[in-house]
Amino acid sequence: MIACAMTHRTPGLKLTEARLPLTCQITAYDENDQARSLAIPVERALTIYVDKRELITLMTLGARPEWLVLGYLRNQGLIDRVQDLESVTVDWEVGAAAVKTRRGIEALQSRTERRVVTTGCGQGSMFGALMEQVAGLQLPPQATLARSQLFALVDTIRQTESTYKSAGSVHACGLFSLAHPQPELLLFIEDVGRHNAVDTIAGWSWLLSTQLQGPMALYTTGRLTSEMVIKAAQMGVPFVISRSGITQMGHQVAQAVGLCAIGRALNRRYLCFSHPQRLLPD
Amino acid sequence: MIACAMTHRTPGLKLTEARLPLTCQITAYDENDQARSLAIPVERALTIYVDKRELITLMTLGARPEWLVLGYLRNQGLIDRVQDLESVTVDWEVGAAAVKTRRGIEALQSRTERRVVTTGCGQGSMFGALMEQVAGLQLPPQATLARSQLFALVDTIRQTESTYKSAGSVHACGLFSLAHPQPELLLFIEDVGRHNAVDTIAGWSWLLSTQLQGPMALYTTGRLTSEMVIKAAQMGVPFVISRSGITQMGHQVAQAVGLCAIGRALNRRYLCFSHPQRLLPD
Repeated sequence: MIACAMTHRTPGLKLTEARLPLTCQITAYDENDQARSLAIPVERALTIYVDKRELITLMTLGARPEWLVLGYLRNQGLIDRVQDLESVTVDWEVGAAAVKTRRGIEALQSRTERRVVTTGCGQGSMFGALMEQVAGLQLPPQATLARSQLFALVDTIRQTESTYKSAGSVHACGLFSLAHPQPELLLFIEDVGRHNAVDTIAGWSWLLSTQLQGPMALYTTGRLTSEMVIKAAQMGVPFVISRSGITQMGHQVAQAVGLCAIGRALNRRYLCFSHPQRLLPD
Repeated sequence: MIACAMTHRTPGLKLTEARLPLTCQITAYDENDQARSLAIPVERALTIYVDKRELITLMTLGARPEWLVLGYLRNQGLIDRVQDLESVTVDWEVGAAAVKTRRGIEALQSRTERRVVTTGCGQGSMFGALMEQVAGLQLPPQATLARSQLFALVDTIRQTESTYKSAGSVHACGLFSLAHPQPELLLFIEDVGRHNAVDTIAGWSWLLSTQLQGPMALYTTGRLTSEMVIKAAQMGVPFVISRSGITQMGHQVAQAVGLCAIGRALNRRYLCFSHPQRLLPD
């Protein structure tokens, strides 16, 4: 996990900093029957309680559980403003994240009822509600990305030390500022679920929203499915870059909201799937 | 999608066979600004209604939506026996799967209430309920896999024509019979979500449960997370093979239920993560 030096200034919001190791060692046997000690990523159950009401259990690597909880509440549309929260307290002893709101859970209850009906999306989130939120969204038309910036961004990810390199089996997301010719990696997060990784970035950027200015780009090791594109658009990020491909609905949403989706990004190669006018030759 | 010649014999259960193309063509632009036409997988929203009550929306490739619905209901513990169902009717015009039960939805309602509380797992399913179901489970101790069978199985997957080869961005699952020295691929399914793929296999094998005898192996392109291992164990499958790795909780569950989990399986290489005594030299 890499995070830039910005710190959040959300007055009165208390966050724990619950940290545990992200990998553990096991013994496996290879094709020559040789025992090999290797690191694998942990996978922890984290149950979110909002004002003492049990909401959901997420399976997570647990790198930054407080930001994950914030991002989950944000991306599910359950909390509108980070200022509405008083505290997020993660306790790994019991695998619980206790969220305290300022206004009680009245509004929350009706929103989670909605969730029972239209939840899912195969990824545990409210597809119907997400599509509604995205319907009126248009990303700033003037934002552009130079091809040299794209290559520099992919290089930065390649050189980043990661749990994936040591233990595999995790997905990574990175949020980049494009304010300067050299893209700056603001936050790099890995998780056992790619949606957890992007939710964690959403939570962190919620805390810093007043400081995060100018166009940004989101890198993901995962595929550009509809939900991934929608979550980027909700953060106001006009560029999503993946080493993988795109699905039809991811492509449709990207075209509709003005998002430049780039896949198969490796070394000096890529495929731009939507809004290629945003991607400039140097 | 490949399916062996077995056909289901669940008297009175009516299933549609809703089929649509699995890929579509888009134009993308490469690093030389060349327009390239390429195939991408479709991603469709399928809303499941049980006795006219809206349950969940899954995002799916839609290869075998009826089996996916069956497997979802089975793996979520919402329906105990396939005989309790009267019909599954998929209509892509409206993106709906209408499930009709024989006994009404009384029992279902209490089970989906449970879901609101302990749902999630980052993958839209009931982790608490799943762990309970798995608690008493022990896979048959005598089932073994010869190393030559493992290599043959991986070879078979490599040679299988797939949406992945033509369009990328999907996960695949294959169910193999180990009744003979040469493993037989019974069903090969791809989906935009790896959990949909294994749910589809679970649905299909539910229909055929009286005919599926002897030890089986499940191949997945995805990682061996807790939920993937649990779903295999629920089907009574003692071998899970992946080209990817394993997480700590996947490893723990595999050890607990007696499942032989094999990862990094590519050509003649692999890592056996649990119960290596099931894997025999030739």
